[in-house]
Amino acid sequence: MTGLTNRQYYLASRPKAAPTSAEVPMRDVALAAPSTGEVIIKNMFISLDPAIRGWMSDAPNYIKPIPIGDAVRSSVIGRVHKSASDDYVEGDVVMTFGGWETYTTAPAAALNKLDESAGVPLSNFLSVLGPTGLTAYFGLLNVGKPKAGDTVLVSAAAGAVGSIVGQIAKLKGCRVVGMAGSDEKCAWIKDELGFDEAINYKTCGDFETAINAACPEGVDIYFDNVGGDIFDSALLCLNKHARVAVCGWISSYNGEVPHFKNLWQLVAESVTIQGFVVLDYIDQFPEGIGQLVQWVMAGKLQFKEDIVDGLDNILPAFLKLFDGSNDGKLMIRIAE
Amino acid sequence: MTGLTNRQYYLASRPKAAPTSAEVPMRDVALAAPSTGEVIIKNMFISLDPAIRGWMSDAPNYIKPIPIGDAVRSSVIGRVHKSASDDYVEGDVVMTFGGWETYTTAPAAALNKLDESAGVPLSNFLSVLGPTGLTAYFGLLNVGKPKAGDTVLVSAAAGAVGSIVGQIAKLKGCRVVGMAGSDEKCAWIKDELGFDEAINYKTCGDFETAINAACPEGVDIYFDNVGGDIFDSALLCLNKHARVAVCGWISSYNGEVPHFKNLWQLVAESVTIQGFVVLDYIDQFPEGIGQLVQWVMAGKLQFKEDIVDGLDNILPAFLKLFDGSNDGKLMIRIAE
Repeated sequence: MTGLTNRQYYLASRPKAAPTSAEVPMRDVALAAPSTGEVIIKNMFISLDPAIRGWMSDAPNYIKPIPIGDAVRSSVIGRVHKSASDDYVEGDVVMTFGGWETYTTAPAAALNKLDESAGVPLSNFLSVLGPTGLTAYFGLLNVGKPKAGDTVLVSAAAGAVGSIVGQIAKLKGCRVVGMAGSDEKCAWIKDELGFDEAINYKTCGDFETAINAACPEGVDIYFDNVGGDIFDSALLCLNKHARVAVCGWISSYNGEVPHFKNLWQLVAESVTIQGFVVLDYIDQFPEGIGQLVQWVMAGKLQFKEDIVDGLDNILPAFLKLFDGSNDGKLMIRIAE
Repeated sequence: MTGLTNRQYYLASRPKAAPTSAEVPMRDVALAAPSTGEVIIKNMFISLDPAIRGWMSDAPNYIKPIPIGDAVRSSVIGRVHKSASDDYVEGDVVMTFGGWETYTTAPAAALNKLDESAGVPLSNFLSVLGPTGLTAYFGLLNVGKPKAGDTVLVSAAAGAVGSIVGQIAKLKGCRVVGMAGSDEKCAWIKDELGFDEAINYKTCGDFETAINAACPEGVDIYFDNVGGDIFDSALLCLNKHARVAVCGWISSYNGEVPHFKNLWQLVAESVTIQGFVVLDYIDQFPEGIGQLVQWVMAGKLQFKEDIVDGLDNILPAFLKLFDGSNDGKLMIRIAE
């Protein structure tokens, strides 16, 4: 043993709706020493993403469900505390799949070393330079295939992914319309990020009417972050040969079963609807990160991080994703 | 005027369910002489396709709805009866978009001349060498993108399109499973067409269980001709990066609104669902027809035609499409 205590928030049972502390309780466990080839990381940042809600369920998914009894799974950034691998020394900063916990133990092969001296805040590697930014990058470019002049509609447009999608679409010469859940968010994406139009989906009334009004030439690419009624309505506004990039359906994660009625648009307009996860493009990550770093350095991409301090705030912080009250890429910071 | 009478079955009102003679009544009208550049064709074959039901409705579609008062629209093959165009002479055999009528008047530019002397039965140009065969060809190859070894699932597999899809998939080295509505149809696609497995969807019980049993390695390509519950169930059986080619949803045409529940599979398996119509590939028609003729001449494609004699049988014949009682590509023949 290490003599250390690891505080974990773990999956006691599979939530049917929004997870509560009954399903995700806390425990303090003794931290075992690392086996050969393993590394113990003291976590500094824990990423909170909608996809985690999917992993709590046992429906088929793109990666295995979180086993009952395990710490909830997240991307984490931490500092190597104890290494039983020749590849890492104490003090290295790494990123990996870890858990909602103080310490994560992982095989060295599963770690990515981060360069603390590059001057980029470490948190950026969980937001614009991490899975979030790469999801926006590959979803828009590889799935949406934008051409200059296309109209791009983005839902959850003030969110961590959507806000990057819209900015990249502008860089590619598209007309960009975002849907967001408050007037403040709408103002931010228009005035600060350069979106052409914004729709407050909570006050706009009928979605189809609102989208048609904001997209008088129809929608060529719909980047969907929400599913549900907005997805179903957006289908009615698509142009011939439109592309729909489907990037996780947060409105369905907490037990509501969506019923889509407008899929006949697939045939009526020869539409392509493609689901994806960022891991589909893992071979192209270096290219994507390289381009994102360039844009960030050149001041062409703005992004927000919503950093909540303290592991013990992790469950209420996570729930902010489902009522839209987070402001930017959500993560937990644990003081070193 | 020509002194001739044109018998037409026309759209008096838009049907809400299966069309009846109240919505598609008959009339005899005087046939006007052709204007300059126009040709009058005496119809010999009238194609009956599920898509026509869609054109009877005024929901947005890939081509305009049939205007109220017009003859129902169909592909037709006929012989030029009177020509006011330099490009056609009396006796030429042509194919065009016409109507449920004895005579179709069309601009010469909208006609395709058929070579009666080539030894191919003219009806084949409405089936395997026409829109039906081309729909199968481009839907499977351009949308489904088959690789040798892929498992291909086809619904309405004994139908005009599905039966060609399955045979082309076999030519491309795939494992092919078809769903059809009777034991006779299942036997035909297995024993005569060479499908690897067949599922009688009327007796198989739970679709997901039946598909999984017939596709133990999962489904890489689902060629969908039906929509509805079969589509929704097939989604649950897809492999990572599966492609779904959606080719018209007959089960939805007569007023039922389908509710799809399993679209989260889009994200779970990074699935692509693409709707298409054969007109999307009009630039590649010569290539497609060339390949289909080769396969037909080499005896590698079998197909059935369900030819019903007599214009006055057109409405009851059309309804066979919706209860599955047609046996092959359905068309009306009008004696010369």
